[in-house]
Amino acid sequence: MAVKSVRPIRLGMVGGGQGAFIGGVHRIAARLDGHFELVAGAYSSYPKRAHASAAELGIERDRSYESFAEMAKREADREDGIEAVSIVTPNHLHFPAAKAFLEAGIHVICDKPLTANLKDAQKLVKLVEKSGKLFVLTHNYTGYPMIRQAQEMVAKGKLGDIRLVNVEYLQDWLAEPIELTGQKQAEWRTDPARSGSGGCVGDIGTHAFNLALFVTGLEVDKMRAQLDTFVEGRKLDDNVQAGFKFKPKGNAPAAQGALWASQVAPGNENNLTLRVYGAKGAIEWAQENPNMLWFTPLGKPKQLLTRGGSGAGAAAANVTRIPAGHPEGYLEGFSTLYTETAAAIRQWNKSGSLGKKSQPPTVGHGLTGMKFIDSCVKSSQKGGAWLKVSL
Amino acid sequence: MAVKSVRPIRLGMVGGGQGAFIGGVHRIAARLDGHFELVAGAYSSYPKRAHASAAELGIERDRSYESFAEMAKREADREDGIEAVSIVTPNHLHFPAAKAFLEAGIHVICDKPLTANLKDAQKLVKLVEKSGKLFVLTHNYTGYPMIRQAQEMVAKGKLGDIRLVNVEYLQDWLAEPIELTGQKQAEWRTDPARSGSGGCVGDIGTHAFNLALFVTGLEVDKMRAQLDTFVEGRKLDDNVQAGFKFKPKGNAPAAQGALWASQVAPGNENNLTLRVYGAKGAIEWAQENPNMLWFTPLGKPKQLLTRGGSGAGAAAANVTRIPAGHPEGYLEGFSTLYTETAAAIRQWNKSGSLGKKSQPPTVGHGLTGMKFIDSCVKSSQKGGAWLKVSL
Amino acid sequence: MAVKSVRPIRLGMVGGGQGAFIGGVHRIAARLDGHFELVAGAYSSYPKRAHASAAELGIERDRSYESFAEMAKREADREDGIEAVSIVTPNHLHFPAAKAFLEAGIHVICDKPLTANLKDAQKLVKLVEKSGKLFVLTHNYTGYPMIRQAQEMVAKGKLGDIRLVNVEYLQDWLAEPIELTGQKQAEWRTDPARSGSGGCVGDIGTHAFNLALFVTGLEVDKMRAQLDTFVEGRKLDDNVQAGFKFKPKGNAPAAQGALWASQVAPGNENNLTLRVYGAKGAIEWAQENPNMLWFTPLGKPKQLLTRGGSGAGAAAANVTRIPAGHPEGYLEGFSTLYTETAAAIRQWNKSGSLGKKSQPPTVGHGLTGMKFIDSCVKSSQKGGAWLKVSL
Amino acid sequence: MAVKSVRPIRLGMVGGGQGAFIGGVHRIAARLDGHFELVAGAYSSYPKRAHASAAELGIERDRSYESFAEMAKREADREDGIEAVSIVTPNHLHFPAAKAFLEAGIHVICDKPLTANLKDAQKLVKLVEKSGKLFVLTHNYTGYPMIRQAQEMVAKGKLGDIRLVNVEYLQDWLAEPIELTGQKQAEWRTDPARSGSGGCVGDIGTHAFNLALFVTGLEVDKMRAQLDTFVEGRKLDDNVQAGFKFKPKGNAPAAQGALWASQVAPGNENNLTLRVYGAKGAIEWAQENPNMLWFTPLGKPKQLLTRGGSGAGAAAANVTRIPAGHPEGYLEGFSTLYTETAAAIRQWNKSGSLGKKSQPPTVGHGLTGMKFIDSCVKSSQKGGAWLKVSL
Repeated sequence: MAVKSVRPIRLGMVGGGQGAFIGGVHRIAARLDGHFELVAGAYSSYPKRAHASAAELGIERDRSYESFAEMAKREADREDGIEAVSIVTPNHLHFPAAKAFLEAGIHVICDKPLTANLKDAQKLVKLVEKSGKLFVLTHNYTGYPMIRQAQEMVAKGKLGDIRLVNVEYLQDWLAEPIELTGQKQAEWRTDPARSGSGGCVGDIGTHAFNLALFVTGLEVDKMRAQLDTFVEGRKLDDNVQAGFKFKPKGNAPAAQGALWASQVAPGNENNLTLRVYGAKGAIEWAQENPNMLWFTPLGKPKQLLTRGGSGAGAAAANVTRIPAGHPEGYLEGFSTLYTETAAAIRQWNKSGSLGKKSQPPTVGHGLTGMKFIDSCVKSSQKGGAWLKVSL
Repeated sequence: MAVKSVRPIRLGMVGGGQGAFIGGVHRIAARLDGHFELVAGAYSSYPKRAHASAAELGIERDRSYESFAEMAKREADREDGIEAVSIVTPNHLHFPAAKAFLEAGIHVICDKPLTANLKDAQKLVKLVEKSGKLFVLTHNYTGYPMIRQAQEMVAKGKLGDIRLVNVEYLQDWLAEPIELTGQKQAEWRTDPARSGSGGCVGDIGTHAFNLALFVTGLEVDKMRAQLDTFVEGRKLDDNVQAGFKFKPKGNAPAAQGALWASQVAPGNENNLTLRVYGAKGAIEWAQENPNMLWFTPLGKPKQLLTRGGSGAGAAAANVTRIPAGHPEGYLEGFSTLYTETAAAIRQWNKSGSLGKKSQPPTVGHGLTGMKFIDSCVKSSQKGGAWLKVSL
Repeated sequence: MAVKSVRPIRLGMVGGGQGAFIGGVHRIAARLDGHFELVAGAYSSYPKRAHASAAELGIERDRSYESFAEMAKREADREDGIEAVSIVTPNHLHFPAAKAFLEAGIHVICDKPLTANLKDAQKLVKLVEKSGKLFVLTHNYTGYPMIRQAQEMVAKGKLGDIRLVNVEYLQDWLAEPIELTGQKQAEWRTDPARSGSGGCVGDIGTHAFNLALFVTGLEVDKMRAQLDTFVEGRKLDDNVQAGFKFKPKGNAPAAQGALWASQVAPGNENNLTLRVYGAKGAIEWAQENPNMLWFTPLGKPKQLLTRGGSGAGAAAANVTRIPAGHPEGYLEGFSTLYTETAAAIRQWNKSGSLGKKSQPPTVGHGLTGMKFIDSCVKSSQKGGAWLKVSL
Repeated sequence: MAVKSVRPIRLGMVGGGQGAFIGGVHRIAARLDGHFELVAGAYSSYPKRAHASAAELGIERDRSYESFAEMAKREADREDGIEAVSIVTPNHLHFPAAKAFLEAGIHVICDKPLTANLKDAQKLVKLVEKSGKLFVLTHNYTGYPMIRQAQEMVAKGKLGDIRLVNVEYLQDWLAEPIELTGQKQAEWRTDPARSGSGGCVGDIGTHAFNLALFVTGLEVDKMRAQLDTFVEGRKLDDNVQAGFKFKPKGNAPAAQGALWASQVAPGNENNLTLRVYGAKGAIEWAQENPNMLWFTPLGKPKQLLTRGGSGAGAAAANVTRIPAGHPEGYLEGFSTLYTETAAAIRQWNKSGSLGKKSQPPTVGHGLTGMKFIDSCVKSSQKGGAWLKVSL
């Protein structure tokens, strides 16, 4: 994922202002590899919050908009206008916002689910076709290296004919009626007007479903489902069980699938798991430990494939940034030190001296480390003798 | 870790050109939260490679330097010169490079270990003091949220008096003499001229040692160590066992510690683990699954604390970017979609149409998702009946 | 589980001769706590094999029978006849054998499933009632201490109203048509004449179903199921997906359940798992690691309860033989030493000297251990100095 | 581990009366495979407790002895006297008891450590030699199938030359001074008069040490150790760190070893682990999950070998009683049903009817299971339709 010697792409954002969640994730994701620069936004439908958010993000005042419609129009007119937009609003705004930008000739990156209802989704497909523009739906779980690895292994026939597909996405944050307490994320997700006809099924069920199809490449022939609501008074489902019969491939029996998504399962944070069993082997993966993929060739011991490890192939390597054994969170840990350094430098710029709070490791820690190495060498040379030290 | 409404800090880099590893990690880390912009560099001691690397990174030609000395001088003279520099060279260059920038009045971020020998380290400490500048050593493992959580728990006395500290950092990539095959990373790490007197102990032992002190806040009173070399002909240690007696706190018996670092332990990629046992409780953590921290209050069941989960406190929350249950690699997965989107947009810019390779999920996937939701609702309404579908 | 000061109960067995599997398990289980002595048997329908098996088991020749009918009659007539019989034949013989012994006034212990068809099962229920004798069905998974713990926790309301029950029993040994190769266990299990109308559903699905009911105490109101056969030519199902709607308790929404049993899922040996999610908490258990039970009180960190550990209650303690941290297999490991000792003693009895094969640890190992302790003490007294030793 | 057609060996026991722990384990171990029958004992040095214990175990009154000396003499004189004795007393009695039985011509099975001090151990070695009798030391951890597997793999060179051996045995039950509260097990283990000069090192350190040697077949050349006592007032060590230099094999560098045993590490019950790293591969094993063995061939993915699974060889198979995927505790679960059945039968014998407490699964559960199978088949035949059922 090396940065190419090309200029970054100009990006705008709709939604994702102060108080939002997924907008910040999109911004980090866009920054991480350095391929985008964020230059415009309509961050909120409340003008005050929109502009305050823009200021915080370092967006010039004249590119902070109060509506996506205005933003689409004005940015399309600029020579240095945005080339792409990220739409990170509640579901019901995906369609009108996407429409506005596609019609303005701007590529669209959109959070899932696509729209609030099937009719809008079908319209949007036509709009995209007509526009000739890129439309990207952030089914982000497909970005994990070991998911690419899994997809590659299925495609190469390492599992033989697929027989069984099991995907689960379990959470517990809606086990109680927190939407009644003003929790914003819960509020719109349990409101049919803003979420559409699916609750849990739309919010996380679609992620699970997409993941299963992405990895297996199977197509659904028949399906059945049961939506349940366990929390009293809730208007949308908070649990879904679905079954699938996939289209047969060749002469093999048709594969069967099962999907379970729940937002009322205590002890589960974002427990997304995928298991695929074929005639010749199986893979098992869990998002909470995404750098690992279990592979069992039928009749042989189970193997643990790791991102960047000896069993991983080209598909995983293509989207891997760091060597094996470092979980991908390694980069965030590293980044935290940079961010604390930035805070220290700003403090230094302001006051000419360094505060004490959260200061990252410094030269003193380095000296301690050097004394440690030196003491190790000396003790070892003396046959492992105890040394009195001052580290 | 919200981005503040302030301009990014101007950053330069020494080392980290084409073919290097940790330089790219530093650049991602600097970009991730948006607090730095990279504007200058001396990326290699080979001029050609230095400039080619700079071009690839989008650095202006007149800020791509052929030596760190020149870079320090010229950047210090510019009004818009760099405010901080990242030093990511082999160990023996840390000292002269850091010296040059500190003397030029520029903050330094430096990879560990501090220097190639203890003498230089002591000099560097004085240089930093004299300079009044910030010096940050990237002991990056201290940036993990659950390590901050562990530190906080020890400090708050949740473990009681510390009795035993065990830290391990096991790898297997040097189990064979790959330095003889021209592998660059192995070559300089096993060369005393570039690494200093410690091999494994300097490369990863210092990380482990730093982590143990960071979490426990203990100070070493006595230590012993044994360095071994298992691969024939290797000039530096590839395995280290060390023991510690810590300074007593109050009347409690002095805590004891053990450290094991190895680069010849098959099946270990970056297996950094920390266990701390106190009179009232214990914590256990493993870097390969960094979002989890095990906590046992003596005589009670073991608890699994998760980043952002119900058992995590303020120290972890301060450095957390996403909710519980999403491993931190979630951001990288997300970022992969953005990077693939950038590639697609660039392809579109060039040819006016979209290629097929690695194309991220698009509107068609969104439509499939919407049909899935719709089918779920319909099937459920019919008591879970099987529906023939066309997803 | 202390042995009481009473004489063991006289036990007979039907089936379980040479070449069988579950008969040996029943015999070990009967011996382990010392409450039974095996004194009679009809070990096979082939007379030769029946008597050879009996001889091997140390059964007197006049209590080795060629049919269960004869055995029931003759044992009932003896003063010292068997008090209970274990029936461990293929499914279709459970009914006639049970009938014969119940009518002879002998308690029955029978392998599951009860009979080969529902009609026989209903008849058997009446026979048992009429007989006034004990009838035990070895749904052995209910014997695990942490399953008793789980049952107790549900009963005490630790999970609140149950909402979701998920039970899985996955195997892979029938992923290929091994019944065609003469594998006996596979042969009768895939033959409707000997297994009845259910294949996978009868063989392991019933275990999973029984476990879910045992732990939750719920009753099924409605159910649905889908049986599939993935291996070509197989006459019975090798995969089952079932759904349950349980009878409501009080005003809470009715609990839902899902069961998945498969014999074609590569990488699964006897992967029986149970998850129960309630309004106030959850439990999760896996048979392949049966000494652990995960418990999550809603909104608190996940806890790891262990057999005999601090979180385990009376129900688990009642059926626990050894302290926490020793997996139950500890007893088998111990037993292996005894068995190897018996072999050595018999060898000694025969030849007056000890062979070398598999000899258990002996006095030399003990001396080594004592030297180890002594050296540890001495080295420690010298500040941890290296000692040259001869262990 | 099939039972051979031979009579069981007559066994006696010294120690292990009411209130003891390990005696019961020995009795179960001796019973499990049916090779021994317990016929005599000196169960306690308190005559009353000795006879009461014997009665509970069904031992004839004239073979319940008040001292091991009397027992050795009298049993040696009987035609049907014991052939072997199990010594399960505190450490300081191992030597005199073993001496008495060896001199009486009776095989000895003895708990570890061998004796309370090195001198007695050396004497005992000579006594055993002179006696020509079998002496078995119950280092029971060597009885686990996957430990036999590990030993076999090392012997076959699957790991190449051994470089590093790490063994740990961590417990937490002595983290507080429970010996002061009258806890019997803690009392004698922390008393030098009854335990000898080693506390933790003797109690569990010897187990760990024995395991490392058993699996690797290495011999110690030099060793060092550090014993610490963390609980105030305790007279023996409760934590030990030891280092080993093994004798070189061929031209390879000498292997190094580390041992850590602790009884003050919160969150550890019987956490015995072994890791062996060689030039070509590695194995890792943990007693708390003993049916699994991790194997990494250098440069290939980690494999999970399971007892009875596809990667397990002859050494494991020799000591395996049940198929893969059933943890060894499966037998105990099964046995619990038999024991509950025995209780029910005794209740029936006494009162002619069955009590309700802990009654094992019965014919009603079987009928429910049959209805479940029947409903599954019916629902599946109707395309998975919901059925109203009465299970």
